[in-house]
Amino acid sequence: MALINDHFLKLPNNYLFADVAKRVNVFKAQHPKSDVISLGIGDVTQPLCPAVIEALHRAADEMASAATFRGYGPEQGYDFLRDAILRGDFLSRGIHLERDEIFVNDGAKSDTGNFQELIRWDNSIAVTDPIYPVYIDSNVMIGRAGTKSDDGRWSNVIYLPCTAENGFVPELPQQRVDVIYLCYPNNPTGTALSRDELRRWVNYALKNDALIFFDAAYEAYIQHDDVPHSIYEIKGARRCAVEFHSYSKTAGFTGVRCGYTVVPKEVTACTLTGERIALNHLWNRRQCTKFNGTSYLSQRAAEAIYTPEGREQVKQTIDYYMQNARHIRETLRSIGMKVYGGEDGPYLWVRTPAGMTSWRFFEQMLYNAHVVCTPGVGFGPSGEGYVRLTAFCSRERTEEALERITNYY
Amino acid sequence: MALINDHFLKLPNNYLFADVAKRVNVFKAQHPKSDVISLGIGDVTQPLCPAVIEALHRAADEMASAATFRGYGPEQGYDFLRDAILRGDFLSRGIHLERDEIFVNDGAKSDTGNFQELIRWDNSIAVTDPIYPVYIDSNVMIGRAGTKSDDGRWSNVIYLPCTAENGFVPELPQQRVDVIYLCYPNNPTGTALSRDELRRWVNYALKNDALIFFDAAYEAYIQHDDVPHSIYEIKGARRCAVEFHSYSKTAGFTGVRCGYTVVPKEVTACTLTGERIALNHLWNRRQCTKFNGTSYLSQRAAEAIYTPEGREQVKQTIDYYMQNARHIRETLRSIGMKVYGGEDGPYLWVRTPAGMTSWRFFEQMLYNAHVVCTPGVGFGPSGEGYVRLTAFCSRERTEEALERITNYY
Repeated sequence: MALINDHFLKLPNNYLFADVAKRVNVFKAQHPKSDVISLGIGDVTQPLCPAVIEALHRAADEMASAATFRGYGPEQGYDFLRDAILRGDFLSRGIHLERDEIFVNDGAKSDTGNFQELIRWDNSIAVTDPIYPVYIDSNVMIGRAGTKSDDGRWSNVIYLPCTAENGFVPELPQQRVDVIYLCYPNNPTGTALSRDELRRWVNYALKNDALIFFDAAYEAYIQHDDVPHSIYEIKGARRCAVEFHSYSKTAGFTGVRCGYTVVPKEVTACTLTGERIALNHLWNRRQCTKFNGTSYLSQRAAEAIYTPEGREQVKQTIDYYMQNARHIRETLRSIGMKVYGGEDGPYLWVRTPAGMTSWRFFEQMLYNAHVVCTPGVGFGPSGEGYVRLTAFCSRERTEEALERITNYY
Repeated sequence: MALINDHFLKLPNNYLFADVAKRVNVFKAQHPKSDVISLGIGDVTQPLCPAVIEALHRAADEMASAATFRGYGPEQGYDFLRDAILRGDFLSRGIHLERDEIFVNDGAKSDTGNFQELIRWDNSIAVTDPIYPVYIDSNVMIGRAGTKSDDGRWSNVIYLPCTAENGFVPELPQQRVDVIYLCYPNNPTGTALSRDELRRWVNYALKNDALIFFDAAYEAYIQHDDVPHSIYEIKGARRCAVEFHSYSKTAGFTGVRCGYTVVPKEVTACTLTGERIALNHLWNRRQCTKFNGTSYLSQRAAEAIYTPEGREQVKQTIDYYMQNARHIRETLRSIGMKVYGGEDGPYLWVRTPAGMTSWRFFEQMLYNAHVVCTPGVGFGPSGEGYVRLTAFCSRERTEEALERITNYY
């Protein structure tokens, strides 16, 4: 009789966004003529830019002829894309990485979920709270998170609260931890860390021989100069940090699927006998065994983002979303709401009125304004009392949503 | 100090195909003017068919306009593709599956590697020998395979030899096992199982409450009526088998990346207290947490394979490769070699001459004929004394390779 990995059974049955969708569907069934606007799920709405579309057509044409057809690519990604990444995202910021420190993937969700395979099941992990659920859930599945208590906390996870009270800047943990998940600009709060604030974390990791798994999926939205685009802007990060990038939000690739992970060769973890092993080597072995490379078309599409036209076009779309963010922030503040984030990231983190729960405020927005947000508590205990709004809707729908919220509030 | 998952360190440093590539590169460096033909790695060479190319262009155009743009798709795949799969691959063979038993993926390698996450680390596994290395290596990484002995066998893996002596039909294991990996038509031997032979395995699994992980990546190459295209053609398989499909070899998608996994709702494994849990539910949870869906373009490309034009075009390419297979088989037999497979699969499994090792014969082919094959021992202990040739080269290069082998042999 085959036995199940029963760590899976510890996971709550519903995934946050499935939960939200169910409640929205109930509302729509009750109000079939209603026009619901979603500022909930963090998916983009604007089309791919012309440079990317052209690259996709060219790649499709290449696949139509035996002379230019491409079969299996390297599991680590094609050199044309890895080199474009090195130049465009790192050298331009004074960061020197090597080509074989870049691993192209099909999006940051896969790699942030899979990377924990490289470390022992009994390492301790710390997460900022609220947090993108994948970091914890992927650790639950391998048995690393322990058991879930009634207050929503996992017994073997150290939570680092990020709330208005500490300006959404997590405090260093009191106890030693082995692995720290950081996502900046942050999902869900839309807030960022300054270079000095991130430096404290790199120094902590170096001093405590800890690893940082740094999710930079939203770096393209950064507007302020003192917010680092990559953790490798901080001295010493090459020795302690792995970084995850995604084109999903950078260039609207949520349906195209492409991103990359940076694993510098100096980043190590230990065997039980104290031998240091390079994670770069292990990750390469993992990818060669369990991954067969990203679609050639998606990689050519990603390459196009780094051309001068591509850069300019992508920037226009990001500016469009960030104008939405500014508009949401200013409008909601003008009617007395407390709004955070949205300055260096595409998310707005909104305080619920006077002690109302996240889910109660979610329902109030849905039933009174026909606007969908995401309840903050779904991202962790410290998300209670907040909801997340996204800047990814079209201008028109965003304005319509704001008008409705203003009218009912 | 973060600790490594030291199961990774048990893996041999080199992956079979990397090893082959290294030796070929040495040869090329020594013989810079040589023209080496590879019948080694199982990658396709013929372009994508016109129906697929058109679908890729159409999908790219859709992504260029906000009205038709697609962001995140369902983690399980789009209904348009899942329905095409149900109709084209199953209903047409009298197999009734439900839409939510189909999980679209980015290729069979990912899912055959990842699916073992759902079962406990201490389940016993059995594999046919020789075998596609991913099945074992992914189990090594989680600690399920035990330790490797000098003869290349893992201590906790039960090997089911498939050799000329038993007609490449594995015998049922003597002891009970929890999970059996089967790949038919087989990689690397190119041989197939008849319906009656596969039925014995399904009955064994049902009787012993075991699971079968069935890799059907090469089913499109089947020529004989008594060879099942899907394990679900066998009664009872819905209760014990998970099946992996890939478009890589079906339609030349090795660079496009798309396939699917079938997890019938009746397939279960147990908790330690004997409760039966549906793997369908767990796999869905796994995919929603660690996977963000397959590229929209790749899914539209796969859908096109099921159109009448697509079917006809794909069949032409498969016929082309299978003519190569027949040509290799007949030519090598005519010069006295023992050749197996290649009738229902794109691989030829060739006996080395008079007790020569796989690697020795590999080197002889490389140095004397400038032809690359894959040493059989790289696929497992029972592969010693064989090499694998693939039918995926162009007609011209295949004939040139055969002429050279004939001349030197």
